[in-house]
Amino acid sequence: YRGLSRAQLSFDYLHTNSTTHEFLFGALAELLDNARDAFATKINIHSISDSSLRGGYMLCFLDDGQGMSPEEASDIITFGKSKKSLESQMIGKYGNGLKSGSMRIGNDLMLFTKKESNMTCVFLSRTFHEIEKLDEIIVPMPSFDANTKRPVTRTPRDKEKHTQEMELILKYSPFRTDAQFMKEFDKIEKTSGTLVIVYNLKLLDSGEPELDVKTDPYDILLAAQDDDSHDGLMPERKSFRSYASILYVDPRMRVYIQGKKVRTKRIISTLYKPRLYKYTSARFKSRSEREAKKSEEDARNAEHRAREAESKAKDLEIKCGKMPDKEQRIELRKAQTHALELRKEAQLRRLISERKIKSLKEPKQLNFVFGVNLENRSRDGMFVYNCSRLIKMYQKIGPQLEGGVLCKGIVGVVDAPYLVLEPTHNKQDFADAKEYRHLQQAMGEHMLQYWRDIDIAQQGVSKFWENFGYISPNWHALPSSDPKYVRKRTAKVQITLQCDLCLKWRIIPYSSNNISKVFPDDWVCSMNPDPAHNRCSSAEEKMNLPEGLLKKIVKTKEQKE
Amino acid sequence: YRGLSRAQLSFDYLHTNSTTHEFLFGALAELLDNARDAFATKINIHSISDSSLRGGYMLCFLDDGQGMSPEEASDIITFGKSKKSLESQMIGKYGNGLKSGSMRIGNDLMLFTKKESNMTCVFLSRTFHEIEKLDEIIVPMPSFDANTKRPVTRTPRDKEKHTQEMELILKYSPFRTDAQFMKEFDKIEKTSGTLVIVYNLKLLDSGEPELDVKTDPYDILLAAQDDDSHDGLMPERKSFRSYASILYVDPRMRVYIQGKKVRTKRIISTLYKPRLYKYTSARFKSRSEREAKKSEEDARNAEHRAREAESKAKDLEIKCGKMPDKEQRIELRKAQTHALELRKEAQLRRLISERKIKSLKEPKQLNFVFGVNLENRSRDGMFVYNCSRLIKMYQKIGPQLEGGVLCKGIVGVVDAPYLVLEPTHNKQDFADAKEYRHLQQAMGEHMLQYWRDIDIAQQGVSKFWENFGYISPNWHALPSSDPKYVRKRTAKVQITLQCDLCLKWRIIPYSSNNISKVFPDDWVCSMNPDPAHNRCSSAEEKMNLPEGLLKKIVKTKEQKE
Repeated sequence: YRGLSRAQLSFDYLHTNSTTHEFLFGALAELLDNARDAFATKINIHSISDSSLRGGYMLCFLDDGQGMSPEEASDIITFGKSKKSLESQMIGKYGNGLKSGSMRIGNDLMLFTKKESNMTCVFLSRTFHEIEKLDEIIVPMPSFDANTKRPVTRTPRDKEKHTQEMELILKYSPFRTDAQFMKEFDKIEKTSGTLVIVYNLKLLDSGEPELDVKTDPYDILLAAQDDDSHDGLMPERKSFRSYASILYVDPRMRVYIQGKKVRTKRIISTLYKPRLYKYTSARFKSRSEREAKKSEEDARNAEHRAREAESKAKDLEIKCGKMPDKEQRIELRKAQTHALELRKEAQLRRLISERKIKSLKEPKQLNFVFGVNLENRSRDGMFVYNCSRLIKMYQKIGPQLEGGVLCKGIVGVVDAPYLVLEPTHNKQDFADAKEYRHLQQAMGEHMLQYWRDIDIAQQGVSKFWENFGYISPNWHALPSSDPKYVRKRTAKVQITLQCDLCLKWRIIPYSSNNISKVFPDDWVCSMNPDPAHNRCSSAEEKMNLPEGLLKKIVKTKEQKE
Repeated sequence: YRGLSRAQLSFDYLHTNSTTHEFLFGALAELLDNARDAFATKINIHSISDSSLRGGYMLCFLDDGQGMSPEEASDIITFGKSKKSLESQMIGKYGNGLKSGSMRIGNDLMLFTKKESNMTCVFLSRTFHEIEKLDEIIVPMPSFDANTKRPVTRTPRDKEKHTQEMELILKYSPFRTDAQFMKEFDKIEKTSGTLVIVYNLKLLDSGEPELDVKTDPYDILLAAQDDDSHDGLMPERKSFRSYASILYVDPRMRVYIQGKKVRTKRIISTLYKPRLYKYTSARFKSRSEREAKKSEEDARNAEHRAREAESKAKDLEIKCGKMPDKEQRIELRKAQTHALELRKEAQLRRLISERKIKSLKEPKQLNFVFGVNLENRSRDGMFVYNCSRLIKMYQKIGPQLEGGVLCKGIVGVVDAPYLVLEPTHNKQDFADAKEYRHLQQAMGEHMLQYWRDIDIAQQGVSKFWENFGYISPNWHALPSSDPKYVRKRTAKVQITLQCDLCLKWRIIPYSSNNISKVFPDDWVCSMNPDPAHNRCSSAEEKMNLPEGLLKKIVKTKEQKE
């Protein structure tokens, strides 16, 4: 179809695409997701002052992940292209996070990446487009040999392209000389990794950048304007450090903000009387059946294509005979490579299909965990993760929506796989409102069950809370800091810390010394007083949450209303 | 920059892009927005049964707007390209709604459009891509002469392209012959207009289409699944007819669903004791100043480019002399056309800039209107329009979030211009959560003022509602249908109808006969018993809402918490 028209991207689309991130930290999170998907063990988000840039600084995301080859880096600029979709553990699926996220934060993006013997830079600059009035999106992507630091160019045309690309980068980026530019690659210390730089940041009406890196030198805050009030906002919406601490349900990557490590928080471990409810739905089964069927079809089709390419290559080989000329040899090699690629693809597809068919037998269920937030009862609601990544937080459900004290103070946590729910573009919501409503409803019912199971109502709700120091009748007031109450609250919830080395969670045995104690950010297993779990080699303790069961209650029509 | 890489779109991006519409009716609304932006006076959304297609029917959107020329139609497939952004009355700005909306509803899109002497079809079929395993997005776009119905092809290459395009369309679309295909153009009765067809609809797990066109023959409903409960949903989230009735703050287009007209509803006119509060903020001013400055710069730059092109053309003219050869003539004509285009562009830019500078002097304010929903007190909250288009509905604000009876039953309406707030991608939220929060806060404060102003609390809240028939203590129960209460509620709110011809709003004088009366869908001015307003030529009555004023109350710290 060479003669036909193709869908294209216009420059303005970079903005269109970025409006999806109405929650600014959601845009930053996209860049964390990418590092996690690249198996980084560490990412540092930090600012570098530069008064020549809009906003006064550039925001950098430096990770030690697997990096990208020049070919992989060039996939970045194909919107929607994502190699990740095959492996279900990955968060990125849409092939869009880097673009939508970075373009929400700033005008310009530079990405430096190192993999094996290659170093590549991707330069997506709106400033360049604006000044030169370009309507197409043109993206310089020079590559270098990681050892010699010389450009990777094979043909004279490659060379010309490289020269032009570097001219543009030195003209429009913060790096004005080759040396300055090349120094950025050196920031990636290991043999692989990626450095993302966003600059010429979006400003508020006041002229200040939206992301405030001044007020707290170790945090990135949502900037407040004169007539703004952030009072009512949850900390995770004001402080990126807070948000990052709960972004993943199972943190496998160390996140640093301005060089200081983010203490990860496993929400479930912070709750009083946590309890697990297993929830299954016929929907999940029919959906996984459909998925399995589709993947089986995919595999069959891929095998068919592979066989076809193989016989074509075979055919060509016969035709060429024993003494093929140069042109024939090139053609033959092409055909053989193509066949090999298709065969590999077919094998992968078959593997995926087999895995899916096998997983059909596994129970399809969601784990709802509920518990009481003793430290701040007004911070309640549902936390919904999707494939380990936080999508919704503090979402009130069921009785919590009705204004009474019923279920207030209860936190619920669930991690729903893609099979059950697919997130939207911006990963702050789910693509199908109806499906999500269904989940909310189910969680609401289970929350009510939990409320009954833990018997708060029986002893009296006010009395329950008073017992933990909630003396003020104002629901939103913090509990008393009287030591007797602090002790009560602390004794009821175990302290759980993540080891900085092995990333396992460790439960610290109760000790009155631990009340209000601040543990170091780089806490490691060897600091654990529990002798059974003071080495990285010892296994993580199972949570062993007590299980609850939903008892169906038939509602009268009156109650339903 | 011919040698450099361009950003591209992969096939998967069509899905990525569509996930933005978590609210299914929001995807349909995108197509209504396009019709409205094309100055359509009428759009009909209807289904056509076809059991060979997934979902069993295709969904059609037929409007009588200005249609698209072949060039304009081809802009569709450039994501982000929108000619609309210059005129601020338009809803579409992002150049993405048709693609994201249609791809959310179904697998395939066909667009037929007529303008002046041209007819064009745009065929964006995922089925085609899936079957042929295409990774690029290839879009056949054949054009025809509207009179002769013959293809518009100039070169042999055009001809070949056309042939290939028609082959693909007849192979993959529901139209299997040229005649069937051409008949679709005939459905556009006037000289211009557009027909959008979405087919191979997305299905639920149950195998039924997501959009239910069977249960109500004159509506498009959100399909319910077995274990679903739609009970708690507002009608606008279940019935597309309800949603469409409030989609625009000033309906200028007649919307038909399955051939039956949608009765538009001006929310403000349905409220008891409506009151207007003007709200100004320093933010708006600084923003419009920035806008004006930017447009001035734009104009200057455009003029510069025009002058340059003009002198280039002039130069070429001199060089060519009096007897230019054919090649020179072509080049000269090209240069002159280019200069002319740039000059036109510069003039437009200058015009826009002047308008913006002039508008700087106008007061920058938002109009908040509040009133009481007597008919269903539990349906309260804020309705936020953006450039006339509904973005948020039933959004609880201020005291409504606190669970008491304070401000319950109050509805607030605001139409915020783009200058104040920019919507997200999916037009169901605002691009900057912080800005939107600011608006919510301001509206919350004004709502409380309104509550004080109308003095409900003084007479006793329960008594107020009882007076209108809310006898059940259950807040969500509907009011009594006892005639004495119905009369009370009806007498307090004027009936306002929109004329089917002139689209002006008319207030029907109170008459006890009108209680529970059903007015015809095609109600026109001449049916109005009010002699001063029973002709389309008479002007619309001004709303003349009483105005309120926010009195700042200094809160103590205790109260703030």
